[in-house]
Amino acid sequence: MSERRLSGVDVTPLTGVGTAVWYRPDADLPERPAPAEVDGEAELAAFEDARDEAEAELDAERERTAERVGEDEAAVFDAHVQFLTDPQIADGVAERIDDGLPAAHAVAETFDEFVERFAAMDGKMAERADDLRDVRDRLLRLLTDGERVDLSALPDGSVVLAERLTPSDTAQLDPERVAGFATVTGGRTSHAAIFARSLAIPAVVGVGDALTSVADGETVVIDGTTGEVVVDPSDDTVAAASEGTEARVREERVETADGREIEVAANVGTPAELGPAADRGADGIGLFRTEFLFLDRDDAPDEAEQYETYKRAIETFPEGRVVVRTLDVGGDKPVPYLDLPDEENPFLGERGIRRSLGPDADLFETQLRALLRADADTDVGSLAVMLPLVTTVEEIAAAETVLDRVVEDLRSEGIEAERPEFGVMIETPAAAFMADEFVSHVDFFSIGTNDLAQYVMAAERGNDAVADLGDFRQPAVLRAIDATTTAAEGTDVWVGMCGEMAGDPALTELLVGLGLTELSMSAVTVPAVKERVSEIDTAAATALAERALAAASRDEVIDLLP
Amino acid sequence: MSERRLSGVDVTPLTGVGTAVWYRPDADLPERPAPAEVDGEAELAAFEDARDEAEAELDAERERTAERVGEDEAAVFDAHVQFLTDPQIADGVAERIDDGLPAAHAVAETFDEFVERFAAMDGKMAERADDLRDVRDRLLRLLTDGERVDLSALPDGSVVLAERLTPSDTAQLDPERVAGFATVTGGRTSHAAIFARSLAIPAVVGVGDALTSVADGETVVIDGTTGEVVVDPSDDTVAAASEGTEARVREERVETADGREIEVAANVGTPAELGPAADRGADGIGLFRTEFLFLDRDDAPDEAEQYETYKRAIETFPEGRVVVRTLDVGGDKPVPYLDLPDEENPFLGERGIRRSLGPDADLFETQLRALLRADADTDVGSLAVMLPLVTTVEEIAAAETVLDRVVEDLRSEGIEAERPEFGVMIETPAAAFMADEFVSHVDFFSIGTNDLAQYVMAAERGNDAVADLGDFRQPAVLRAIDATTTAAEGTDVWVGMCGEMAGDPALTELLVGLGLTELSMSAVTVPAVKERVSEIDTAAATALAERALAAASRDEVIDLLP
Repeated sequence: MSERRLSGVDVTPLTGVGTAVWYRPDADLPERPAPAEVDGEAELAAFEDARDEAEAELDAERERTAERVGEDEAAVFDAHVQFLTDPQIADGVAERIDDGLPAAHAVAETFDEFVERFAAMDGKMAERADDLRDVRDRLLRLLTDGERVDLSALPDGSVVLAERLTPSDTAQLDPERVAGFATVTGGRTSHAAIFARSLAIPAVVGVGDALTSVADGETVVIDGTTGEVVVDPSDDTVAAASEGTEARVREERVETADGREIEVAANVGTPAELGPAADRGADGIGLFRTEFLFLDRDDAPDEAEQYETYKRAIETFPEGRVVVRTLDVGGDKPVPYLDLPDEENPFLGERGIRRSLGPDADLFETQLRALLRADADTDVGSLAVMLPLVTTVEEIAAAETVLDRVVEDLRSEGIEAERPEFGVMIETPAAAFMADEFVSHVDFFSIGTNDLAQYVMAAERGNDAVADLGDFRQPAVLRAIDATTTAAEGTDVWVGMCGEMAGDPALTELLVGLGLTELSMSAVTVPAVKERVSEIDTAAATALAERALAAASRDEVIDLLP
Repeated sequence: MSERRLSGVDVTPLTGVGTAVWYRPDADLPERPAPAEVDGEAELAAFEDARDEAEAELDAERERTAERVGEDEAAVFDAHVQFLTDPQIADGVAERIDDGLPAAHAVAETFDEFVERFAAMDGKMAERADDLRDVRDRLLRLLTDGERVDLSALPDGSVVLAERLTPSDTAQLDPERVAGFATVTGGRTSHAAIFARSLAIPAVVGVGDALTSVADGETVVIDGTTGEVVVDPSDDTVAAASEGTEARVREERVETADGREIEVAANVGTPAELGPAADRGADGIGLFRTEFLFLDRDDAPDEAEQYETYKRAIETFPEGRVVVRTLDVGGDKPVPYLDLPDEENPFLGERGIRRSLGPDADLFETQLRALLRADADTDVGSLAVMLPLVTTVEEIAAAETVLDRVVEDLRSEGIEAERPEFGVMIETPAAAFMADEFVSHVDFFSIGTNDLAQYVMAAERGNDAVADLGDFRQPAVLRAIDATTTAAEGTDVWVGMCGEMAGDPALTELLVGLGLTELSMSAVTVPAVKERVSEIDTAAATALAERALAAASRDEVIDLLP
């Protein structure tokens, strides 16, 4: 039989070959016994044990995820613990056990009641229904010893196939053992895709129902570059896949074929990612998210704690630059010690620089002090400070005033502080429209394409119904990027990119043509992008960019790409 | 004593003089009697009576609001009825009465429990806490005969002062009797402001705590043009205010002082607003929202029903044009017969044209058929069809194909259908960036500044914390408008505006300078804008626009304005 090729969404430029293992997490509920046969006290104890065990599991998965992927992704486990320990839910289970149900049935009925209630609500609340289901299934597994595939103990070389992978599921995957995964649902920015990139696992998502035609035990190639799943592959296909299409790691900086240097840096969300980024040949850090320092704790980190972290980051790249983004939180993140507002649309609310210049001014100053001290105390590397969600010149000027004051304060304390490189994220249409006014205030721009595409196209990432609209390859998004690079032309301001778009080797030539000189991405894609850069001719890249900017549609742009 | 001037946010260009009446809706709960004194059956009956009465009130207010203001604003009353008839809430009240509480206390306790629960949730859910409080207060008023000011029966010439006005409150205001209102909180797009414009009531919102210094019975001037509240005004101030600063109604079309014709049209959301719009001198309708036809019913309106409505709209303006926006719904509106998705950010989801070309294709075709038949059957006036939330050329082309097919179909049925004027809303940054590609597909653009400013600035309307950022006068917003008019320059495409910005006479010169030739607004502001247009010199307006586009900040723009 000849090989079958299924196509989905490419997630990482990595290829894996292995044996299909279907992951079906549904726990089967045992037959319900007659009430008289149920030992209420024993069932209540069983429920409480399961709850404790589940909480321990969740804590471990939270830690693991925060370390390996980042605080943003780990936060979902906090919501799970909240549901697990919710007194209303606990009372509901206890009452049902009291009425003669075994613990598993009591859990299923109680959670299903809440799932239904949440599912009937709007937006975020409806999403919580998924979290409730996750918690329910975890408890049922612990209560029934269900025959679930243990994702952390798969045979070496397994390719996991699933309808979808929850955060709980993906947190268990061991990149050393799993050859890859493919899912029926999901897009480029789904939980599963973000995990795959962070953990460097070959993955294809959004394959659709065709994936269910693959049987357990079949040999499967996951081609994360093309987005293909090859079932029952020919020997040639396996050989090609095993050889690896992965690019070699280049420690050195790269330039285009005609000699334009392009900095290829990594995005990181935790200190644990710094070493692996350097190992993959990143020239530096183009986006160091600092939220991990501030989330999931009761008090703000003090200057000393922050100082240590920033120093370590700068020292990891003795020849490179570390671009640190100042705290970027808003109403969608739980930070107990900040008075974060409840907002209907937190993406359009008081967040990022808006808070740093308002209610969180003290935190902002402390963060800048820690950054500048860390920079002053390291002989190697260099620091750049970047502001998130900037939309006006006034915001930049106000932040500049704080930065200058911090430099003066530190000097008066005898610390040889210097003003670091200073720049802003270009992640709102306003910033793209006003970039020509911003240039006189900054040293660099870094384009955050995920948010930029979302705001430009009014299409949410992660909403499948509008995924094509929110695509980076929409000409409107390219024009917003071009407005930014054009504004910086002929000035000393350099323009980088730190959104997902920067990590796709198929777009590297276009980005170089648009005038970007720094690209920052998940560490896993650094080697492939470096390789691609070395092949590019800038004149051809410029011509490509011109054609793309003149395109009337995304399809026309796609036709122009390699 | 000399007069005191308090300043707030100007809402309507109308001035009123009257006597201050504070509106404080808090109902006082009577002393709680001992359980033995409580007649459970009587209290339960009282609760049920109050509930029935409240529901009747809500139905009436809903109707009234839908008719006078629009379906969007009326929808809030549906949520109130839902809470009022929620079985969980009813059970909670009944249980508490059973435990010996009088009905009023049982209502207060039960609702407060739910208020607390919702207030602890995120975003939309937290907002529902306000709705619950509204319903609770209504029930308590009915149960306690609380001494609430009856807003529908105020003495003639009252100026209502309040902390805030809820939708329930504002729906009761009688524009014939109330001289104006002022509130401590609220912004230009708050419920109260929208009602004030729709009902043509002089109003100033967001005055802050200073407003509480005004005592009941003091004479107050509400200057909705300057946003000032003048307390204890001098005779001169009263005389000036009484004389009226309101512009006279001009039936005729207006042109600038140097002869450029500017169409001044009205935005309407219901057929009831058509007549008043004509009475105020609107040249036509620049935005006829059609959602009222589709919301709050169990089945979609058929072609015949829609036909009658559209015909009436066209006939109301025999010399003018009626721009009908096709159905613009998404996950934030309840339409039982549509399968609307639950979305985390419905503003960035599947809505507007995205649904009309997808799941609601049948509805879209029926709406176009009704529109074109209505146009064919009227000898006067003219129809224009406008698409909402367009971001790509493909969307316009796809809609054009449907429109052409409908024309063909109708002709084959013997109806003399003609292709109407065809245009798109420019309300996303993508549309502004791509306008030069759109021009070859459309007859006109209409800039929706409310959404455009929101997406450009990533700042939600109605979120006070970011209100200054979301202001139309931000240079980034002006540049997005300019990108649109520039794209249309030298083509046959005319460019109008139908957002709030179009109705502010202080901005008219700037908009004319930016190249807009049609402005559509709340009917109440039509006379003032017509007057303003007649004073403008286009060369001066163009120079003003150039300076505003070169401004680096909103403050610089404001300094340029009259």
